[in-house]
Amino acid sequence: MEKVNINEKLALFSDHWNPRIVGELNGQLVKLVKFQGEFVWHKHEEEDELFYVLKGAFDMQFRDKTVRLQEGEFLIVPRGVEHRPVAAEEVAVMLFEPVSTLNTGDAGGERKREELERI
Amino acid sequence: MEKVNINEKLALFSDHWNPRIVGELNGQLVKLVKFQGEFVWHKHEEEDELFYVLKGAFDMQFRDKTVRLQEGEFLIVPRGVEHRPVAAEEVAVMLFEPVSTLNTGDAGGERKREELERI
Repeated sequence: MEKVNINEKLALFSDHWNPRIVGELNGQLVKLVKFQGEFVWHKHEEEDELFYVLKGAFDMQFRDKTVRLQEGEFLIVPRGVEHRPVAAEEVAVMLFEPVSTLNTGDAGGERKREELERI
Repeated sequence: MEKVNINEKLALFSDHWNPRIVGELNGQLVKLVKFQGEFVWHKHEEEDELFYVLKGAFDMQFRDKTVRLQEGEFLIVPRGVEHRPVAAEEVAVMLFEPVSTLNTGDAGGERKREELERI
């Protein structure tokens, strides 16, 4: 039962689109990730996904709109909804989602990350 | 599918020990709460509980130790573990926990809050 300091954890990695696990509770994971550029369009059939901006800003694109997320804001993307994060500048994000969630959802591809590192 | 701005939500209430619901996903709730003073000793038999400090600092007391939590830090209290939050000054905290979680856990009492407001 140790506390987690978000800034200390963010200092431990610099690569993009590669989430780290920093907590687990009730079958859910708390992850940290850094984004820059465009991700792939994808959806999660069984998982809702929360994106909370820690530093910076990014656009969450949906097929019919875009939501701009700034520091101190979060968005819950419901299961089944296609989305694509796009960040002009680097952004640091905290994710809350079920243990089963795969970063690229139904899309797979070269950006898929499995066996995430716990830091 | 609307984003949530944490500071805007925190400005909507000023009472202590009365969590508000600001998000729901995967059977879990995201709540905001302001603390000051001492809460009651309690535990949750079935729920792990995450406390993330947004503003200020507080002590999470356990029967055998105390963990000081500052802004930008979180702690996961596992189910079954007795705990008591104590804040010398006001602190704003984000909670992430199952829908079933009651603030006072097994203790009940006058600080129990049911039918939480969604803001």
